[in-house]
Amino acid sequence: MKPIQVGLLGLGTVGAGTYAVLKRNQAEIQRRLGRAVVITMVADLDTTKARALVDSDCQVVSDAKQVIANPEIDIVIELIGGYGIALELVLSAIDAGKHVVTANKALLAVHGNEIFAAAQRQGVMIGFEAAVAGGIPIIKSLREGLSANRIEWLAGIINGTTNFILTEMREKSLSFEAALHQAQALGYAEADPTFDIQGIDAAHKCSILASMAFGIPMPFAKAYIEGIVHLQAVDIEFAKQLGYRIKLLGIAKKTAHGIELRVHPGLVSKESLIANVEGAMNAVMVKADAVGTTLYYGKGAGGEPTASAVIADLIDIARLSSADAACRVPYLAYQPSAIQDLPVLSIDDVQTCHYLRLGVADQAGVLANVTGVLAEFGISIDAMLQQPASQGHDQTELIILTHVAQESVMKAAIQKIQQLPTVLHPVVRIRKEDLS
Amino acid sequence: MKPIQVGLLGLGTVGAGTYAVLKRNQAEIQRRLGRAVVITMVADLDTTKARALVDSDCQVVSDAKQVIANPEIDIVIELIGGYGIALELVLSAIDAGKHVVTANKALLAVHGNEIFAAAQRQGVMIGFEAAVAGGIPIIKSLREGLSANRIEWLAGIINGTTNFILTEMREKSLSFEAALHQAQALGYAEADPTFDIQGIDAAHKCSILASMAFGIPMPFAKAYIEGIVHLQAVDIEFAKQLGYRIKLLGIAKKTAHGIELRVHPGLVSKESLIANVEGAMNAVMVKADAVGTTLYYGKGAGGEPTASAVIADLIDIARLSSADAACRVPYLAYQPSAIQDLPVLSIDDVQTCHYLRLGVADQAGVLANVTGVLAEFGISIDAMLQQPASQGHDQTELIILTHVAQESVMKAAIQKIQQLPTVLHPVVRIRKEDLS
Repeated sequence: MKPIQVGLLGLGTVGAGTYAVLKRNQAEIQRRLGRAVVITMVADLDTTKARALVDSDCQVVSDAKQVIANPEIDIVIELIGGYGIALELVLSAIDAGKHVVTANKALLAVHGNEIFAAAQRQGVMIGFEAAVAGGIPIIKSLREGLSANRIEWLAGIINGTTNFILTEMREKSLSFEAALHQAQALGYAEADPTFDIQGIDAAHKCSILASMAFGIPMPFAKAYIEGIVHLQAVDIEFAKQLGYRIKLLGIAKKTAHGIELRVHPGLVSKESLIANVEGAMNAVMVKADAVGTTLYYGKGAGGEPTASAVIADLIDIARLSSADAACRVPYLAYQPSAIQDLPVLSIDDVQTCHYLRLGVADQAGVLANVTGVLAEFGISIDAMLQQPASQGHDQTELIILTHVAQESVMKAAIQKIQQLPTVLHPVVRIRKEDLS
Repeated sequence: MKPIQVGLLGLGTVGAGTYAVLKRNQAEIQRRLGRAVVITMVADLDTTKARALVDSDCQVVSDAKQVIANPEIDIVIELIGGYGIALELVLSAIDAGKHVVTANKALLAVHGNEIFAAAQRQGVMIGFEAAVAGGIPIIKSLREGLSANRIEWLAGIINGTTNFILTEMREKSLSFEAALHQAQALGYAEADPTFDIQGIDAAHKCSILASMAFGIPMPFAKAYIEGIVHLQAVDIEFAKQLGYRIKLLGIAKKTAHGIELRVHPGLVSKESLIANVEGAMNAVMVKADAVGTTLYYGKGAGGEPTASAVIADLIDIARLSSADAACRVPYLAYQPSAIQDLPVLSIDDVQTCHYLRLGVADQAGVLANVTGVLAEFGISIDAMLQQPASQGHDQTELIILTHVAQESVMKAAIQKIQQLPTVLHPVVRIRKEDLS
């Protein structure tokens, strides 16, 4: 069969990794696919840099539109990132009848509904394994491997930067700021880390997974998002004493009332596999009715791990594009006509356990006051930890783990607790996830 | 599109699970696939039991050949097990032009080459996700998700029965026999547990994975296989003291000299994710050049988890069977014409670290003698643990962890150590795996 011809837009870390891996493993890939997959054209604004990275038989241009206009190109890989020019290029590649592979989670989370509708009209395939959790085949597993199941929930560590920061904070007792600097120095965090540390990147990825798990339109706009910026080292330490680690989790859950979709720090039992996913590694747990709980683990970022996913998509398209269009794997796991616009719950309707840290006066009756308020709101206590007041101080820390409570109820209880005269600073509250 | 019609051979635990999950999740599966998948015919020797398990519109027969002969049937699921009648039925289903889905690892490991050759001639698909690690989509991940990579090695806990036994032995300090009885009482081990505890079941699965990872003919006949029958609780305890857990591992590795293929107990660091795969759970680690290390975790057995994999294969076949035959995913990940008959190494040529336990006389010079022999063979020591001799005994246990040594060299060194007059019983030796 004739080689699949691929055009690559954007020759940054992932683009260069994709070119390098495809070249290095060409023979192995042909042994699997039965035909060659060749990047014959590359677009990058820096054509000098691009020229140095690719072979002489690969055409280098500065204008991505030239790649899209090339009738020889079967598949266009978009690795530019962001929502601006990337959206325009992806839509025009689709219009030109090209299959598209992208690693751009922001683009799909924000404009996915529009992009998939256009692709459906044009009968082209969109591969985006690289958009979530790097080279871990989580998109394929969720979309194809678990296709017999009703997905009940998924929970993932899907941002390596924040997981690296949290691991450093715990292992080296660093502050958030110190751990962030460490991550930047080692290249695990960008100069502007906003999207990572605010939880936005994780929410992009979690939205894509939620859409595929439940057959709903891309729900990013309705996601609850909380980053790790305000996490304090002391809470990581108290969590450890109670047998937990704190991770930035992306959670999507189907309930009788709608879909939970939330990204926030959460306590997980240190015995659980997901608690032991450390450093820049990623993992996604999926709970489904037939298979039970499965977990997928690996590197969530980096040139070659992400290239692994990009190239797997190229190979899939080379295979499945010859099938009847109606037989192909749907973009978001469900047939476009079967997508249901289920409600996404407000965070106020979500039920979780909670970790509470209270700075209280070291005097009689404080504990009775606090537990009295919790009891009044029907919130029961799972565990408690009280630090002895340090010498010469009349303030102490009280840590409470609660059983499941609804967010809105917990907020009201916290508000009332903060009005107690013996509670001396705002209550620190972190959700705790069961994940079993 | 018209429904896919499926015939099911064998209505045991997995067969009944497949029927039940397919019926329960029919609406969800149609939302994904865009058409129905229906089991319209079932064969089981016990037709009364079968009749009670399936709906009235499903035909029940005692003779599996009637299912294969039915021209309405698109896909035949073989869940009979074993190599006898199952081989005959799978081959005649292929001859009749049916696609086949099977959970039968023994059949594929032993007769896979013949079965896949027949399927290739007839242009039919064979799905066997259910043959390895239950519902974990490890076959799909290895064959499609990692298709951009050169696979370097894989290591798995792929037998739930033995992992349950080892977990019980460690957590409850039970002997092998007591833990086996426990496993049998709880239904985790069969009345005749030979295939599990001897490592044969794990070797079947590891052979399938090795064939797909490296593009080699099914190598089961050349596998090195060692079970857990001779494992002693005391070694699990010493391993724990040194920071390790003992797991029954299936390992396949590509080296410059050939393929390592081996199933045996191995020490793994208790910090590693795979060490924390407990009870009847399964996990497979895969190391590949671009993506790095990925891990896949979940239930490795049971009716519904295995049904999840069987049905995923039905859905895949419904999709991909409309593609050009040359574009389909190859049975064993590589095109049949590209399979290479690489040598499988003898266990003597394998290099690992080792755990050694020696019963030695509690007298001066013993340690010097033992370490002298190791030095003579060029084997260096990583860690050592010496138990104080108990009151009134003149014998003590000496535990040594070595760095990497070749199996044949280690065997010769052990033989020489056993000739020392101060070494009082045969050396216990367990391999230790690095897996990083």
